[in-house]
Amino acid sequence: MRSITSQQQAYIAGFLDGDGSIYVQAKKNSTYRYGYQIAPYVVLFQSTKSESNFAKICNLIGLGHLRRRKDGISEYIIGRINQLKEFLELVEPFVILKRKQVALMLQILDQKEKIENKEDFEALLKLIDAFREFNYSKKRLKRTLTP
Amino acid sequence: MRSITSQQQAYIAGFLDGDGSIYVQAKKNSTYRYGYQIAPYVVLFQSTKSESNFAKICNLIGLGHLRRRKDGISEYIIGRINQLKEFLELVEPFVILKRKQVALMLQILDQKEKIENKEDFEALLKLIDAFREFNYSKKRLKRTLTP
Repeated sequence: MRSITSQQQAYIAGFLDGDGSIYVQAKKNSTYRYGYQIAPYVVLFQSTKSESNFAKICNLIGLGHLRRRKDGISEYIIGRINQLKEFLELVEPFVILKRKQVALMLQILDQKEKIENKEDFEALLKLIDAFREFNYSKKRLKRTLTP
Repeated sequence: MRSITSQQQAYIAGFLDGDGSIYVQAKKNSTYRYGYQIAPYVVLFQSTKSESNFAKICNLIGLGHLRRRKDGISEYIIGRINQLKEFLELVEPFVILKRKQVALMLQILDQKEKIENKEDFEALLKLIDAFREFNYSKKRLKRTLTP
């Protein structure tokens, strides 16, 4: 990431709180050592019509990639572990609504790196369950938000 | 408003870009001098369930008032002209997506104060039409955002 001011960090934290989502999935996949692929990510959304302005925010962040969905929405996805960690550490000092999610996700990324055996992996899955539980109520609310 | 840091200003600008709406209505009302009530406002939304965290953002802004809707949504509404102007000037240096809307709304508030005759008022209505046109495409997109 390029150098970024604390005001820009704060702006991004505010935008994440207003518009963004933090997810983690544990997908069954037998090609992975413990039978699961762990896929954490952050997504920001915006209409493709305002993509030129949205791209300014994405460039400011300078991590992840912008993807155009067929339904007129552009998604900025940060899914690579190092980039995700960098992003979360960037917003951590300023985030308000998603403060707990940011902290828990950083913990998950940390644990993920330290896995040595099946017990470690099961503990990680528990953390992920806790995160998803926590997120689920948020998601439900989001759905209620725009009837 | 209490003293606020530039990081807090930037956070609020980011939150407005992600989650907020800027509106202005010209409502027919014969008790008003030129037959219309001009009602501009900024609204931020959040689920009532996360109201305690949302209240932190509202307190940070320190303008407007928090209202609980019956559908589980809390709205933070800034509708008084002086407070609205203060809010818009606060976010103006940092806002990205809603930059044009903030500038145009500040112009509308400015014109509104200077009205001396019917021609001035009609010019104001034109500005409001322009703003609403501009906002309308945003609103439509918002609707598409959460299918």
